[in-house]
Amino acid sequence: MKNDIHLSPIGTIYSPFSDPKEMPIQPASAIGITGKVVVEAEFQEGLKDLEGFSHVILLYYFHLSSGYNLLPKPFLDDEPRGLFATRAPRRPNPLGFSILRLEKINGPTLHVSNVDIIDGTPLLDIKPYVPAFDSHAEATIGWLSGKLDRLNDFRSDDRFSVSPPLIEDS
Amino acid sequence: MKNDIHLSPIGTIYSPFSDPKEMPIQPASAIGITGKVVVEAEFQEGLKDLEGFSHVILLYYFHLSSGYNLLPKPFLDDEPRGLFATRAPRRPNPLGFSILRLEKINGPTLHVSNVDIIDGTPLLDIKPYVPAFDSHAEATIGWLSGKLDRLNDFRSDDRFSVSPPLIEDS
Repeated sequence: MKNDIHLSPIGTIYSPFSDPKEMPIQPASAIGITGKVVVEAEFQEGLKDLEGFSHVILLYYFHLSSGYNLLPKPFLDDEPRGLFATRAPRRPNPLGFSILRLEKINGPTLHVSNVDIIDGTPLLDIKPYVPAFDSHAEATIGWLSGKLDRLNDFRSDDRFSVSPPLIEDS
Repeated sequence: MKNDIHLSPIGTIYSPFSDPKEMPIQPASAIGITGKVVVEAEFQEGLKDLEGFSHVILLYYFHLSSGYNLLPKPFLDDEPRGLFATRAPRRPNPLGFSILRLEKINGPTLHVSNVDIIDGTPLLDIKPYVPAFDSHAEATIGWLSGKLDRLNDFRSDDRFSVSPPLIEDS
């Protein structure tokens, strides 16, 4: 499909993680880690009314990722899994998606917690998290079943940005 | 911020909604509506292992949207709200996000339900829905509080694609 889509960042995500090797691999393993989301001045008016929401959905660009593997070996498993059954950052369209806790908003700056995003990541969109739309506690999780207990044992590694010789991407 | 991001669709989303005017405005008001997500042949291998998940996250391009208004009037309210506190399709980066129920997969085709997406929408990414990461039943919803009971009374309208004279975008 040839119809190219062009996007431009609307801001930047700041976090304590300048190195993918030390980064939590999901917000659920990043509890309490704080960061900032700063939107460009031209978009600040669009933040009105957002502070009433306890959680925000961030869409962002995995700017350190390049290429992809349709059968990566995830952090949480020992065998290759279909890319679209993983949250690996190396994807045909390297779009990231995280639900973060919104602590407060000061001008163009969202103070957020549970940040699993690398410092300097380009922000593409902010949406309000709405449990009636977005919460499905009963959902089943296929190959991940029984594996999430190990989540806190893992950190991201080089798989985030490049494909090392022996380990494929997460 | 000038660094352009280029994406290409990895497939297409098919639904009964060829006209934005008749479309549910969220999956929660589209219960039972079925549709298909077809990935291009080159990406089909990446669907392996996905069928074990009951829900999928789709990221897609609001291809009928153009422009945006930082203070749109939502379907569910009578006063303008900050764009980033709404799920309006007209956004600086018109990226859509829906969590759909995955019924089954046949080759390159995902059969999904609870579809709130217009027919022919370009698909950008598929991610597995994982309650431990994505379910926050306790989240608070600001201006939307008390308004979701009316969800089923609404359908999308012209606000989806253009900004009519009297009604701003959703």
